[in-house]
Amino acid sequence: MVWREQSKGACEKLMTLEEIIGSIEPSDQEIMEQAREHSLRLAMPPLALGKLHVIGERVCGIQRTLEPSVKQKAVLVMAGDHGIAAKGVSAFPQEVTGEMVRTFVRGGAGINALARQTNARVVVVDMGIISDISDLADAATAQTGQASGKEVLIIKKMDKGTRDFTLGPAMTRDQAEQSVVAGYQICAELLEQGVELLATGDMGIGNTSPSSAIGAVITGHTVGRMTGRGTGVDDVGYVRKCDAIEKGIAVNTPDPEDPLDVLSKVGGFEIGGIAGAILAAARFRRPVVVDGLISTAGGLLAHAMSPAVADYMFSGHQSVEQGHRFMLEHMGLEPILKLDMRLGEGTGAALAMQVIEAAVRIFREVFTFEQAGVTEGAA
Amino acid sequence: MVWREQSKGACEKLMTLEEIIGSIEPSDQEIMEQAREHSLRLAMPPLALGKLHVIGERVCGIQRTLEPSVKQKAVLVMAGDHGIAAKGVSAFPQEVTGEMVRTFVRGGAGINALARQTNARVVVVDMGIISDISDLADAATAQTGQASGKEVLIIKKMDKGTRDFTLGPAMTRDQAEQSVVAGYQICAELLEQGVELLATGDMGIGNTSPSSAIGAVITGHTVGRMTGRGTGVDDVGYVRKCDAIEKGIAVNTPDPEDPLDVLSKVGGFEIGGIAGAILAAARFRRPVVVDGLISTAGGLLAHAMSPAVADYMFSGHQSVEQGHRFMLEHMGLEPILKLDMRLGEGTGAALAMQVIEAAVRIFREVFTFEQAGVTEGAA
Repeated sequence: MVWREQSKGACEKLMTLEEIIGSIEPSDQEIMEQAREHSLRLAMPPLALGKLHVIGERVCGIQRTLEPSVKQKAVLVMAGDHGIAAKGVSAFPQEVTGEMVRTFVRGGAGINALARQTNARVVVVDMGIISDISDLADAATAQTGQASGKEVLIIKKMDKGTRDFTLGPAMTRDQAEQSVVAGYQICAELLEQGVELLATGDMGIGNTSPSSAIGAVITGHTVGRMTGRGTGVDDVGYVRKCDAIEKGIAVNTPDPEDPLDVLSKVGGFEIGGIAGAILAAARFRRPVVVDGLISTAGGLLAHAMSPAVADYMFSGHQSVEQGHRFMLEHMGLEPILKLDMRLGEGTGAALAMQVIEAAVRIFREVFTFEQAGVTEGAA
Repeated sequence: MVWREQSKGACEKLMTLEEIIGSIEPSDQEIMEQAREHSLRLAMPPLALGKLHVIGERVCGIQRTLEPSVKQKAVLVMAGDHGIAAKGVSAFPQEVTGEMVRTFVRGGAGINALARQTNARVVVVDMGIISDISDLADAATAQTGQASGKEVLIIKKMDKGTRDFTLGPAMTRDQAEQSVVAGYQICAELLEQGVELLATGDMGIGNTSPSSAIGAVITGHTVGRMTGRGTGVDDVGYVRKCDAIEKGIAVNTPDPEDPLDVLSKVGGFEIGGIAGAILAAARFRRPVVVDGLISTAGGLLAHAMSPAVADYMFSGHQSVEQGHRFMLEHMGLEPILKLDMRLGEGTGAALAMQVIEAAVRIFREVFTFEQAGVTEGAA
């Protein structure tokens, strides 16, 4: 399938997913080395702000500049429903997906509060939830500019939820590709509008199950190791959840070397959308903060398509979900925050955006020894 | 010694340090329980934002309200010089203390960048540095309201640096008490001006040595365990530093049960000032974010004076300095961030202020299940 690349002028061109992937390059190592030299000249003991320096230098390498900027921020909250919910893998009923999407648009969820804190726009995307929320689309657009004023709703419904993957593929291969391209396109438009720092988030009752399944297939770890309790299933529910994921992998035999195959067989529409958003960040050379288990499952898919995307990804936080750290290890990423969070929605990523913005300030605003007139140490 | 309590009206009263300490009460457990009940009603899986809920509830207990507020913020950067620097315990020469204080006032240091990020005022206090910076005092006051506009300088010089504590007490007992009361008074004035969230920071070449000494005396851990490399001394310097701290404790035999004795014998003026600021936060029922090793040494002294102050303290981050975690364990505190920082100045505390503000937003702004119209889970 093809999509139309949005551009500021009248010029438009068509690209395939393959072309998008082919256009992604690693971040600029030379600029990162220059950035490191600058960090070492700041008026403080060498690299005394630890990981803040590394973060600032990575943003330089990503944005190809020694004057990085992350002021314009947006959180993409991708929502989808999951057929696997019928197997009792979640502590919450499926209608909660749509109810929470309505709450996002009203500005009343955790991600809204944290996005206000970090001064980020919230872009909610219906990638394939069961509920019909088309009544909200106009209202949301009308709301832009209000007190909270940061909520936008986009409807890109692939289908009314995925199918139960214990019975066959969650979606068609074409839907899998469409979900990635839709995520890419939405994100590309945001980046073209000037967004400099992006965060990914998710909403979807049952979506830790496909995420753990993707994690198990791609990292090679066992389902038991990759699976946690999601919103909080009890012991019986946990066994049921692991069994369902095992069965989904056994029935579908997804090919770990083919990320679209994995996504179509055991994935979800919002997870495909997140993968696409991460590809867009990489192609447009912007940092993207990835939230917990579900967002990182999207990251694994994007990484399997183009390993260079790891250069553009920051892991916002270490989720309580036990599979999350194995996903991060697979991509060589370290979480910025560890606060025992397990909500999703992009909350951990939004919170970490502040740390990234702080790191960029350190890089740009702190005087060098020379500017400060401070005597250098012997170290 | 006595000090004058500032009040909004004409009424003034005199209080001793003993009276200040006597006026501190634990935070309100009943309000914290009510806050926990509210957290459990938020439209998300139970306590899914982990430590953010605990932080928000603690602020409720501290401020005695279910409508906590931490918008008005200030970072107190206490500066002092140290006679022990003569023993070659630091990688930097002693004049750097004054040079960095000038940099703080110019807005060019790490703490200035991070305070701008978190929208906090920077209040720099000369508690006893060697350099004369009185020329800056007027300039700093004049600068308030400028672009950076957040820097204020206060001069409360106890002396031109402490004495070398390997040869006898670092300061007199009266100076120790004066430094605590001065820190209290400066902080009390800020809190009376409406500051709702405070952070402590430090500047002083050589000041990890007194901090490790205070830590060893109060926690009972060995000097070797409590001592790190500060700004970055080499192996020979590290042995020299440990030896100097050992000798300082052996020569002075500070009484672990008498915090003013510990402060006067192996402490520093800025560390006393930080202890006083923490006492003020506790008495005025405001949260105070404590930075790394030096600030936490001040925290240990305040805690030894009144264990209830632990209720009001947040540990901003886990310092690279190896003694820091033993200090935190002693007071039952857990660091909010772990980013391999070791700068001081209040940088880790300022960065953590954003997390505390985010936690308060979660508590106040997220809809309950009822408000959101979201179906509750079975968990």
